[in-house]
Amino acid sequence: MAALSNVTRNSRVLIQVIGTTSRTFSCSAVQHGSGKRVGVIGLGNMGGPMALNLLNKGNSVTVFDVYPEAMSKLHDAGATIGHSPAEVAEKSDTIITMLPNSTHVQEAYAGENGVFQTAKPGSLLIDSSTIDPSVSKEMASLAEKKAMTFIDAPVSGGVMAAKAGTLTFMVGGPEKEFANAKAVLEHVGKNIVYCGPVGSGQAAKICNNMLLAINMVGTAEAMNLGVRLGLDPKLLSNIINTSSGRSWSSEIYNPVPGVLPNVPASNNYEGGFGTALMMKDLGLAQSSATRSNSAIPLGSLAHQLYRLMSVRGYAKKDFSSIYQFLQKSENSN
Amino acid sequence: MAALSNVTRNSRVLIQVIGTTSRTFSCSAVQHGSGKRVGVIGLGNMGGPMALNLLNKGNSVTVFDVYPEAMSKLHDAGATIGHSPAEVAEKSDTIITMLPNSTHVQEAYAGENGVFQTAKPGSLLIDSSTIDPSVSKEMASLAEKKAMTFIDAPVSGGVMAAKAGTLTFMVGGPEKEFANAKAVLEHVGKNIVYCGPVGSGQAAKICNNMLLAINMVGTAEAMNLGVRLGLDPKLLSNIINTSSGRSWSSEIYNPVPGVLPNVPASNNYEGGFGTALMMKDLGLAQSSATRSNSAIPLGSLAHQLYRLMSVRGYAKKDFSSIYQFLQKSENSN
Amino acid sequence: MAALSNVTRNSRVLIQVIGTTSRTFSCSAVQHGSGKRVGVIGLGNMGGPMALNLLNKGNSVTVFDVYPEAMSKLHDAGATIGHSPAEVAEKSDTIITMLPNSTHVQEAYAGENGVFQTAKPGSLLIDSSTIDPSVSKEMASLAEKKAMTFIDAPVSGGVMAAKAGTLTFMVGGPEKEFANAKAVLEHVGKNIVYCGPVGSGQAAKICNNMLLAINMVGTAEAMNLGVRLGLDPKLLSNIINTSSGRSWSSEIYNPVPGVLPNVPASNNYEGGFGTALMMKDLGLAQSSATRSNSAIPLGSLAHQLYRLMSVRGYAKKDFSSIYQFLQKSENSN
Amino acid sequence: MAALSNVTRNSRVLIQVIGTTSRTFSCSAVQHGSGKRVGVIGLGNMGGPMALNLLNKGNSVTVFDVYPEAMSKLHDAGATIGHSPAEVAEKSDTIITMLPNSTHVQEAYAGENGVFQTAKPGSLLIDSSTIDPSVSKEMASLAEKKAMTFIDAPVSGGVMAAKAGTLTFMVGGPEKEFANAKAVLEHVGKNIVYCGPVGSGQAAKICNNMLLAINMVGTAEAMNLGVRLGLDPKLLSNIINTSSGRSWSSEIYNPVPGVLPNVPASNNYEGGFGTALMMKDLGLAQSSATRSNSAIPLGSLAHQLYRLMSVRGYAKKDFSSIYQFLQKSENSN
Repeated sequence: MAALSNVTRNSRVLIQVIGTTSRTFSCSAVQHGSGKRVGVIGLGNMGGPMALNLLNKGNSVTVFDVYPEAMSKLHDAGATIGHSPAEVAEKSDTIITMLPNSTHVQEAYAGENGVFQTAKPGSLLIDSSTIDPSVSKEMASLAEKKAMTFIDAPVSGGVMAAKAGTLTFMVGGPEKEFANAKAVLEHVGKNIVYCGPVGSGQAAKICNNMLLAINMVGTAEAMNLGVRLGLDPKLLSNIINTSSGRSWSSEIYNPVPGVLPNVPASNNYEGGFGTALMMKDLGLAQSSATRSNSAIPLGSLAHQLYRLMSVRGYAKKDFSSIYQFLQKSENSN
Repeated sequence: MAALSNVTRNSRVLIQVIGTTSRTFSCSAVQHGSGKRVGVIGLGNMGGPMALNLLNKGNSVTVFDVYPEAMSKLHDAGATIGHSPAEVAEKSDTIITMLPNSTHVQEAYAGENGVFQTAKPGSLLIDSSTIDPSVSKEMASLAEKKAMTFIDAPVSGGVMAAKAGTLTFMVGGPEKEFANAKAVLEHVGKNIVYCGPVGSGQAAKICNNMLLAINMVGTAEAMNLGVRLGLDPKLLSNIINTSSGRSWSSEIYNPVPGVLPNVPASNNYEGGFGTALMMKDLGLAQSSATRSNSAIPLGSLAHQLYRLMSVRGYAKKDFSSIYQFLQKSENSN
Repeated sequence: MAALSNVTRNSRVLIQVIGTTSRTFSCSAVQHGSGKRVGVIGLGNMGGPMALNLLNKGNSVTVFDVYPEAMSKLHDAGATIGHSPAEVAEKSDTIITMLPNSTHVQEAYAGENGVFQTAKPGSLLIDSSTIDPSVSKEMASLAEKKAMTFIDAPVSGGVMAAKAGTLTFMVGGPEKEFANAKAVLEHVGKNIVYCGPVGSGQAAKICNNMLLAINMVGTAEAMNLGVRLGLDPKLLSNIINTSSGRSWSSEIYNPVPGVLPNVPASNNYEGGFGTALMMKDLGLAQSSATRSNSAIPLGSLAHQLYRLMSVRGYAKKDFSSIYQFLQKSENSN
Repeated sequence: MAALSNVTRNSRVLIQVIGTTSRTFSCSAVQHGSGKRVGVIGLGNMGGPMALNLLNKGNSVTVFDVYPEAMSKLHDAGATIGHSPAEVAEKSDTIITMLPNSTHVQEAYAGENGVFQTAKPGSLLIDSSTIDPSVSKEMASLAEKKAMTFIDAPVSGGVMAAKAGTLTFMVGGPEKEFANAKAVLEHVGKNIVYCGPVGSGQAAKICNNMLLAINMVGTAEAMNLGVRLGLDPKLLSNIINTSSGRSWSSEIYNPVPGVLPNVPASNNYEGGFGTALMMKDLGLAQSSATRSNSAIPLGSLAHQLYRLMSVRGYAKKDFSSIYQFLQKSENSN
């Protein structure tokens, strides 16, 4: 579920793995049919392309972002501009939010000019941000009091998939609302997976991404140890990938430069899924683990390592740069 | 490279992954042809079946084990009994050792009645034990002084693969001797992978198994966290396995009871690859990392967790029982 | 800052270390003088004795607790009963809260029948609970809007010190209000330390207790390793305590049974500061570290170890029982 | 037991803590009396001053070092030069070795020109190197076969104490030989502590130094967290040092620049006990823990952190520079 913005080949591989059923046919049907009134709040790298795809599928789209430039692009493409979440909510039946963190989500829904001020009873509120599941539950509870439905639906697939409309959505909310949510989300994604009650989408994403971090750090450790013991990294990688040590991190996203083409490791750890973003997801895992009293010794240590990396200059590098962080540096002695 | 003794389906999957080229033809050729004089020292769960397979392929086999019963079985099957490693060496051109740890290997080769006492110049000494690569190098150096060749060739595949003659061998030693080693090892294994100079086989195995431990502990943490957050384990497992968190541990050997059939987790963590064995391999990784000054934060923590498990009653359970160790126990409050 | 309820000798040592200036004179002056109207909300092991001491020093005390029995004891001693935090606030100028966690504090102040509903402008609100500093700041901000002053003042010293009126308070809040807070807190404590703006008292306590946990786990590891290597625990303890490995945990609260008398380790790990309480404080450290992006690798791992202990039956044992958790158990093999 | 070469004030404090009984009288008696024939092998920062002190106390001293310059200094001071450990042994009744690691010790005693080749039966062999206790036992066993006594006696106190003759020795060996060892070691040290059978001195030192590393990393984490939460480092340090978080690392060797004068932290982490040396001691702890199957989760993680530091440019800085490593670096973003 890493956001693999620049990694063409691998994104494709990931997507192929995640879903195989083509939905092209049903989508094109919608394209010519009766669109919906959909609001999109948060027009960044992910939310912007999602709004565009919703427009392209024939929906009537109202947008809001704190950056006016982000809105004017969408306006040019046919969207209506809202001047606040509340104004977006007034003009929409379904609202999708795609925001950086829990605080932004709380503000957008429950703030002074938030969605809850104006949205109609019966509105479907879909939050695709990756946030703390406890905040999702809090928003769902507030929504319910106003006869609205709040659903958490964090995504997997990255900027490339957002543009291509092939995102995967992990959906948490009332089962009876899933079909409605799916009908909208299919305009921007390819796989819409129902995970359980509200917060379950976040829980699934957090668990996967924590495991991704662990597998990645582990792969970096094993590869670094092997190289220091004199093994050729490609040979070791082949052995691991045909054996019990293999994982998505070793096969698809190997952290050692030169082992795979077209991964961040072979591009100076640029692009891909940044260390700071992984650190954020591990922070959510940490909080969820603390709240549920779940022991996550490796997840917690991976979190600390990404923090160390972030204070030592790696915040913007791809999270596979943990390999470089473990390596002997040039200025060490 | 876990020893998956009781896990029929998965062992098969692993083996299919590891190697696809059939070598049946060349093997059957040997079967009817001129066998070699091969000694086998160490006739436990792995060494015993290997000796049998060597006999079945038409070799003349001399065996030694500290337990007489282990030898008498092989004697009944046609092997000659040696009364010490030295006596085995006298009667063999190629010697295969399969012993529990570094000390046993040092004793078998360099001890008072060891192989080095009697083996002829030109002998090929193949150690399939999993030991410290530095001990492999030490033995190779002693062998070289006597004009013998010592090769490290630890295995992957477990007891089932030992019986079926389908083991994978990771071989370290002089490249020019690889063909000779391969010719013998193909009588007991299916994939013979050249890894580099002596010690490289051990290095490859150690790196893979350390990574296996990390991925397994990580999978257990993520699954446990997800379950405590209310997710269904099969659903979470499906999401992970079609996404970036997937690994051999989640797909083939899932540690949560009931998620997969025919894995130790679904059989009260019996069979499989014991916690004590994983702890031993992690100890080798730890030593190699200390010697090469390689940072292995997660590998090292996984080592400590398996140690904690071993002192708290899990030594003989399969290493996937880390899931149970993380779970809330019945007597906790 | 561990709560050392049953550890007479050591508590005394700790207190001697923490403060030496006697304040008997000023206290006795108050005793006969004009008492204040003080409210106490939360009458558990800590809050109950504090309320009693406030009564004994001549204050007019109004109390509230969710358990009526807790209130009736104080009523017998001369306190007025309030039926809600709001009612306590009505009858008091200074309010002290001593509650289990952040949620309770939020409820007591900002809830429906909370302090903020009825407290007069100019009221001094002192929260002695150990909670997340961000919640302290949130409460202080709400108080400020109502012209009240909210101060965080978590304690150190445990139940014994609460009864003896010798607690240490770490105070965070506006510096100009410190003298007022100190005047009240001196009725229940001996050392009143100013730490900085609101939240600073919590921060100081959290940092100290995280370090305590690390030092304790470390001491347990070193002692266990030494004993397994054949050293006598008292001898090793003496060497450590006269050398660079010494700490409060090794000198005053040694986790090995029999090394010190009158510590929980020598009393089957009963009494003292429970594993569950330490786990709570480590959770606060974890959250503060995540929020401030501070790397706490050992603190984080100590947190995970206490979590593992809590799910394996150690929740109610003293936190020094980590020694027992590391030891080889009877049922291990 | 950290080697505190440049830290005048603190070294003094440490030494005062370690031992209080003056032995000046007995020493001065020896100075004028009948000296012994003592060999010293290894004349580095520690061994050199020790050899000088032995000369000053009236002993007949023969020395060896692989660097001729190291020997010529001692020659000028009155020592006899040996050209190999064997030659030193020929001319001595008691031999003290002070070498960098296990391999050097094995070579000096059991190598081709080693001590065992020429030392007389009855010789007392004292190894003051810090090495693996299993190597000490191995050497003792070889010595015993030749009717010699091998004793391990690693030191604490650093270069300053070596020069001043105030080292602390932790002695492992047969109890009946302790008096003899003590009689010699009192010429170079102040506190001679008997720890148990051979290897016990090493065990004690390893346990103490592992704990020192843990306490130091913990102190750095707590101080860094507190500073990021807005606390003044001196204030936080005072609170910790009068409370349950205190340790030698926080009180005597605080890792935050400016909190204490005359510590490496206040001198750009120069001098003191280098990260590389701490890493070596943690490697010995790791090996001993692996061999004895002792869980050392924090010790093991501290080991990994010092390794990370060593590959990132901190190898030669004082081990308290972990504080700097955790801090936000200038080039991070």
